[in-house]
Amino acid sequence: MNKRKIIIAVIGGAQPDKKSIEIAEQVGRCIAQKGAILITGGMGGVMRAASKGAHEAGGQVIGVLPGNNNKDANEYVDIPIVTGIGEARNSIITRTCDCAIAIDGSYGTLSEIAYCMIYHKPVIGINTWKLDAPIIETQNAQEAVDLALNKVGA
Amino acid sequence: MNKRKIIIAVIGGAQPDKKSIEIAEQVGRCIAQKGAILITGGMGGVMRAASKGAHEAGGQVIGVLPGNNNKDANEYVDIPIVTGIGEARNSIITRTCDCAIAIDGSYGTLSEIAYCMIYHKPVIGINTWKLDAPIIETQNAQEAVDLALNKVGA
Amino acid sequence: MNKRKIIIAVIGGAQPDKKSIEIAEQVGRCIAQKGAILITGGMGGVMRAASKGAHEAGGQVIGVLPGNNNKDANEYVDIPIVTGIGEARNSIITRTCDCAIAIDGSYGTLSEIAYCMIYHKPVIGINTWKLDAPIIETQNAQEAVDLALNKVGA
Amino acid sequence: MNKRKIIIAVIGGAQPDKKSIEIAEQVGRCIAQKGAILITGGMGGVMRAASKGAHEAGGQVIGVLPGNNNKDANEYVDIPIVTGIGEARNSIITRTCDCAIAIDGSYGTLSEIAYCMIYHKPVIGINTWKLDAPIIETQNAQEAVDLALNKVGA
Repeated sequence: MNKRKIIIAVIGGAQPDKKSIEIAEQVGRCIAQKGAILITGGMGGVMRAASKGAHEAGGQVIGVLPGNNNKDANEYVDIPIVTGIGEARNSIITRTCDCAIAIDGSYGTLSEIAYCMIYHKPVIGINTWKLDAPIIETQNAQEAVDLALNKVGA
Repeated sequence: MNKRKIIIAVIGGAQPDKKSIEIAEQVGRCIAQKGAILITGGMGGVMRAASKGAHEAGGQVIGVLPGNNNKDANEYVDIPIVTGIGEARNSIITRTCDCAIAIDGSYGTLSEIAYCMIYHKPVIGINTWKLDAPIIETQNAQEAVDLALNKVGA
Repeated sequence: MNKRKIIIAVIGGAQPDKKSIEIAEQVGRCIAQKGAILITGGMGGVMRAASKGAHEAGGQVIGVLPGNNNKDANEYVDIPIVTGIGEARNSIITRTCDCAIAIDGSYGTLSEIAYCMIYHKPVIGINTWKLDAPIIETQNAQEAVDLALNKVGA
Repeated sequence: MNKRKIIIAVIGGAQPDKKSIEIAEQVGRCIAQKGAILITGGMGGVMRAASKGAHEAGGQVIGVLPGNNNKDANEYVDIPIVTGIGEARNSIITRTCDCAIAIDGSYGTLSEIAYCMIYHKPVIGINTWKLDAPIIETQNAQEAVDLALNKVGA
């Protein structure tokens, strides 16, 4: 029997501030250290920082790209999934993950939080959208990953 | 030369309260009276009420369905677009419309508002999500449609 | 009750020969004359020629575009559906139509014929792919449309 | 720098004959032995057999699922990508792979071969569709994988 690894999404903006980049990298590192797989949208900003953290800690990184070319992926993506479906790929990231950690983020992140709610995926939030929705807030990278794993029963 | 008609989306919940259903039907009627095409997600609730209003006023109604069967469409849809891509079809509704009117709504509507912002489509809001986003709020159906048409320069 | 119009897809290449363009335009015209709606991929070649035929005969033309901009549609499209999902939109054209007429065509058309078979949509073929599949072949535009309507019980 | 692994798709029918199942399993095993990643549609038949071969040989298996639930994946999938976009996911499998090996197969496989041609991905064929297309035919699993790797310059 194939014991599947937990898949955690990190969602967040393409143009985050310096603090969010640091946190995203820490979150990625913690995900890898816990033996989970990281999934992101594969591009820059928070996505790249989390990928860097996970990849450098020996974890595996999936990037679900909006465009048509695997070369669009940031350099820390191990497995680029080339969707070619643009921002509609936000639905795939959120259907695929067991849980999501939102860091900072603009409207793309908002659409992903909304999809997580539709698909009943827990969302941990760090300096992200304030919504009338059950986002579990924290300020700490390690705690965010612990909360995520706890939420999915891992 | 083909002078294309304006396409206005009505986005909103599948389980609205009675007031939202009334407003959605009025909005649909006003869209038809102005000669614009209505596009919705093709299903029930706000989508069905707006479709009823537009269809009965002689307008044309496009329903962009999540599922695999045109029979899923509410009975006021003239043209069912059968996507088979689930909630990712929210990206298509918002890419296709010139402007969107959000009425009530839950997480599906939230994802559509987010997509509108990504694609730079104006959003008129009636009793919908309160967000840190440029949603133009009103309480009146006729005004919502006038604002929508004004925003797209029609 | 809303008596929905039959929707016929015309699928075919972006770079057809002169003969295929003529036939596609005739097919479009016949579809409009029979009161059916034409759906195509919205771009050039066979898609544009069929759209021209239908539009000039007073019919309605839906273009299911691969890209992000309604301006990509050929000038005879009345309703551009802006998918932003690239060639995956071939699945939507074929799910949406009641029947398809394939004229000439390259690999995009081949993918659409395959989808029609998966979704149990009848395919009428004019100078198109020869496959181990139940494509109903003809050389005549009028006959193609008559066969299409007959197949869907219209 | 992240040296990305080659990703090979195995495409084929959900209801193959016994011979095709054996070959698919051998192909999966060879892919793993060469250090490449296997990508399939994640379901049964040829997809499952190839996944079994690769997984049991210590390789990694990605399953790009049409539905909404990672439990739909066959038991040898290591990373289920849950698309929720139905058969339109055939476009994602083929955009993502570097090369595809087609074994047996019905209309779903035909759509995938068509997409490979659109996206300029080499296709190796074993007892699959005979088409006017540059499919490289072989009868041997090991040779199929060698040809695939050779085609992508690995």
